Amino acid sequence: MRKIHVIGIGAGDPDQLTLQAVKALRRTDVFFVLDKGEVKSDLTRLRHDLLEAHRPEGAYRLVEARDPERDRTAGGAAYSPAVGDWRSARAALYERLIAEELGEDESGAFLVWGDPALYDSTLGILEEVLDRGAVTFSYDVVPGISSVSALVAKHRTGLNRVARPVQITTGRRLTESFPDGVDDVVVMLDAHQAFRQYADQDIDIYWGAYIGTPDEILVSGPLSETAERIGRLRAEARERKGWIMDTYLLRRHPRGGGEAAE
Amino acid sequence: MRKIHVIGIGAGDPDQLTLQAVKALRRTDVFFVLDKGEVKSDLTRLRHDLLEAHRPEGAYRLVEARDPERDRTAGGAAYSPAVGDWRSARAALYERLIAEELGEDESGAFLVWGDPALYDSTLGILEEVLDRGAVTFSYDVVPGISSVSALVAKHRTGLNRVARPVQITTGRRLTESFPDGVDDVVVMLDAHQAFRQYADQDIDIYWGAYIGTPDEILVSGPLSETAERIGRLRAEARERKGWIMDTYLLRRHPRGGGEAAE
Ligand SMILES: C[S@@+](CC[C@H](N)C(=O)[O-])C[C@H]1O[C@@H](n2cnc3c(N)ncnc32)[C@H](O)[C@@H]1O
Ligand SMILES: C[S@@+](CC[C@H](N)C(=O)[O-])C[C@H]1O[C@@H](n2cnc3c(N)ncnc32)[C@H](O)[C@@H]1O
Repeated sequence: MRKIHVIGIGAGDPDQLTLQAVKALRRTDVFFVLDKGEVKSDLTRLRHDLLEAHRPEGAYRLVEARDPERDRTAGGAAYSPAVGDWRSARAALYERLIAEELGEDESGAFLVWGDPALYDSTLGILEEVLDRGAVTFSYDVVPGISSVSALVAKHRTGLNRVARPVQITTGRRLTESFPDGVDDVVVMLDAHQAFRQYADQDIDIYWGAYIGTPDEILVSGPLSETAERIGRLRAEARERKGWIMDTYLLRRHPRGGGEAAE
Repeated sequence: MRKIHVIGIGAGDPDQLTLQAVKALRRTDVFFVLDKGEVKSDLTRLRHDLLEAHRPEGAYRLVEARDPERDRTAGGAAYSPAVGDWRSARAALYERLIAEELGEDESGAFLVWGDPALYDSTLGILEEVLDRGAVTFSYDVVPGISSVSALVAKHRTGLNRVARPVQITTGRRLTESFPDGVDDVVVMLDAHQAFRQYADQDIDIYWGAYIGTPDEILVSGPLSETAERIGRLRAEARERKGWIMDTYLLRRHPRGGGEAAE
């Protein structure tokens, strides 16, 4: 039976790879690298570097393919259907790649940015491929260091405060409202700096872009004092590199005094 | 200047260590191992095993100490003050350990279970030690695979569903209510199986105990069909081993149909 490893490779620093991930890399015959367009060069380069570092003998095959484009023009209510179409197109592609490129007794791997558990579609697509029934395989998941863990480690702070919850959400949702019932909120996939609309509140931000890479930028402090600077740094970096990946933690101060981070 | 590494070591599987953590382990002169009582034997054993695996030459010092007991009898409103006293006692201990056991030009390390960012007090205590001003040092944080990442990897599912948020909270909070505005909730530090009170709702649970260790137990399925079995397995395991660590994801189905995991 075909075997597939879904391997979290960390969010930028090649040393974020776990020993388990290195072992899985070494057991893999065929690597599938899906090119996602814009951020292509830097992100696929990290994957190539990892393979060169951990498979120096080169005894593997590399299958590169173009990930179907998602229709990003469809916003608001149309969001889910567009995502659905895109997911079916990806399932068809993955099915074909697995059927054509992976021998019956071979093992393949998808190298997933960060942790496969956070805002990544690989697991959902593999389930969809299995549901279609045209190709069979078993698979396992190797957890990775997410950009969320990398962010707070660099800022030397925790995700939660003592005995309190933390929520991980998207820029799109933060634009709608600050989440209910939590004062610690991590925001990913934010193309529009949703934090700016909360700059008049008593909130600290821990922001990071290109975390773990040589281009890393970190800023933290009260949102009222840092929001503008982050906006400027972000625009400059984006202009310079052509793409940006950033993540941030918003930590709201409870009315009436601070509480230490756990 | 003294240097301290706060190193996330993963939540049970020694292969969850990252290459960055291995490098930090190798640069460390003095390891501080704080014994937390009940779960002592197994958890401190993993730390010893990691040191033996990655520092076979043994050229390091190991400083073991008893972590001050937290007053767990204080519940409800008294929760925070009790935690505060306990944290001060720990700060005094850490201060003394660093001042007495770590030379001015040496580097020390705290090996933290899982990811230091999640429900762990080490970073807060080090900041408190620095605030007290009696001892100075610089420190950095090496992120680790959390039990949360390990849980969902074993269940081969994601934390969030497409474009939706996920919250990480405690058993105590889940007992009060199901969090607002999220349908995917990870629960840690739950001594009382708070999930049982939601067994009449349309919720799936992904549960794991001793994840990543030889004792690992995994159960998933609709809460209505699994809650009792998890309760039984948990009680048996706890009885057998004398302690338990478990974590779970609750995934509530939106009224009116499913949505695939991202
Ligand atoms: C499609 S999600 C994938 C997340 C990934 N699975 C993880 O665990 O980090 C992409 C988002 O992750 C965040 N991200 C990923 N890598 C990052 C990095 N090196 N620095 C900052 N943010 C990053 C950004 O918020 C970006 O919009
Ligand atoms: C004090 S918190 C520390 C969490 C840790 N920093 C992490 O990242 O996983 C302890 C809680 O973590 C969870 N936990 C830690 N290790 C676990 C494991 N191997 N299996 C299941 N749950 C675990 C349990 O919910 C436990 O109550």
